[in-house]
Amino acid sequence: MHKIHDMQLFYAPGITLPRYTLPAEESAHAVRVLRLATGDQIFLTDGRGTLHRAVIIEADHKACVIEAVESTLQSPPGWSLTVGVAPTKNIDRFEWFLEKATEIGISRVIPLECARSERRVFKRDHSLRVITSAVKQSLTAWHPALDEMTPFAKAVAAPFDGVKLIAHCIDGTARRPIGECLQPGVPTMVLIGPEGDFSPQEVEAALGAGFIPVTLGEQRMRTETAALASVFAMHYLARG
Amino acid sequence: MHKIHDMQLFYAPGITLPRYTLPAEESAHAVRVLRLATGDQIFLTDGRGTLHRAVIIEADHKACVIEAVESTLQSPPGWSLTVGVAPTKNIDRFEWFLEKATEIGISRVIPLECARSERRVFKRDHSLRVITSAVKQSLTAWHPALDEMTPFAKAVAAPFDGVKLIAHCIDGTARRPIGECLQPGVPTMVLIGPEGDFSPQEVEAALGAGFIPVTLGEQRMRTETAALASVFAMHYLARG
Repeated sequence: MHKIHDMQLFYAPGITLPRYTLPAEESAHAVRVLRLATGDQIFLTDGRGTLHRAVIIEADHKACVIEAVESTLQSPPGWSLTVGVAPTKNIDRFEWFLEKATEIGISRVIPLECARSERRVFKRDHSLRVITSAVKQSLTAWHPALDEMTPFAKAVAAPFDGVKLIAHCIDGTARRPIGECLQPGVPTMVLIGPEGDFSPQEVEAALGAGFIPVTLGEQRMRTETAALASVFAMHYLARG
Repeated sequence: MHKIHDMQLFYAPGITLPRYTLPAEESAHAVRVLRLATGDQIFLTDGRGTLHRAVIIEADHKACVIEAVESTLQSPPGWSLTVGVAPTKNIDRFEWFLEKATEIGISRVIPLECARSERRVFKRDHSLRVITSAVKQSLTAWHPALDEMTPFAKAVAAPFDGVKLIAHCIDGTARRPIGECLQPGVPTMVLIGPEGDFSPQEVEAALGAGFIPVTLGEQRMRTETAALASVFAMHYLARG
């Protein structure tokens, strides 16, 4: 893996090689905010594993031109984690989850619309910017995917080639500790419900679709904390 | 352990038995906000493991009187975790850590003043309220302790009967994965540095005081994310 030091990382999904002009907003950031000049080195990623080391050719604050010097492919992460989670009433809590999950490592987030959802309107663009910002902060070359709001039934019925888990809180039902169901390299999807939990009908539909009921621990956690717990579980508990 | 359902939990460290008058703010919350009336059931905790089931005797919005019906001691958690961490420049990030750590489970937080600290003024009262609010939300009978801002040298020199770990990010030094150093029931202290990391001198001082250098994973994490990672590590990785 390419070693990145305390360098500035730019997200450039549409990068062209060897020369590329940063979008206006990024150009202003590079030239005006960071005061980068011609000849300075920057890093760019396409968000799909490729990291480009580049130098600035034209330090124009409206159209900063760079030239790639070296392109390396970061090894893909040793895990694949999709989390389906109901966005919270206070969107800050959901976006906080997106930021932290990106820092720790997540593949894809599916915002779920559930029977007891506290939020049914979801502005994907804003939340996507939170993820991109965390990608740059974390200096990772992998940009997590973010779906549009998805009805629970649709998310559950969609084909998924891997382990499917649902973390619900209905007392008196059998649930396995999540650690028992995680393996590195095996794509995993975890569903996390809204504050009022999944409805019994939703849990039943998920079990019917092959989801395994799991528990994240003994504690009572808010939606966004539970979602993050599943990310940490993947990173700390998946055993070879 | 006493099973708590979706009940309202009040934090009452100074509770008197069998009768107790809620402070004015709590009385207003119970009577005005929650509209609880005489005869209604509430729960109170002293934050040190005792949970009281009580009924309201006088639903006075300035001085609500309750009478304890049953008091149970929740079993102490099977872990003991102290995290020393430098408060972030943006205090919301630190308080977010306090909220989440309380939800997941933590014993004590020591705000550290480090060589590269971005924040040297710390308002303990405000941060303590964040913890108390999370205690009530999580329905736990254990209230984490929060120290005043503590100079790094003092925190490192203080006696601690247990495993002492320092999570630093200095490249090219030996660090063990944190999971190898955690055991349930063994009191553990983890130190997390500011955004610019601990200074080499601080790391040296900690090693001299018996701290073991550890890593929380491969990812580059913000201070508050790293602090939370240590909490999840304790809960997910401590093995019997």
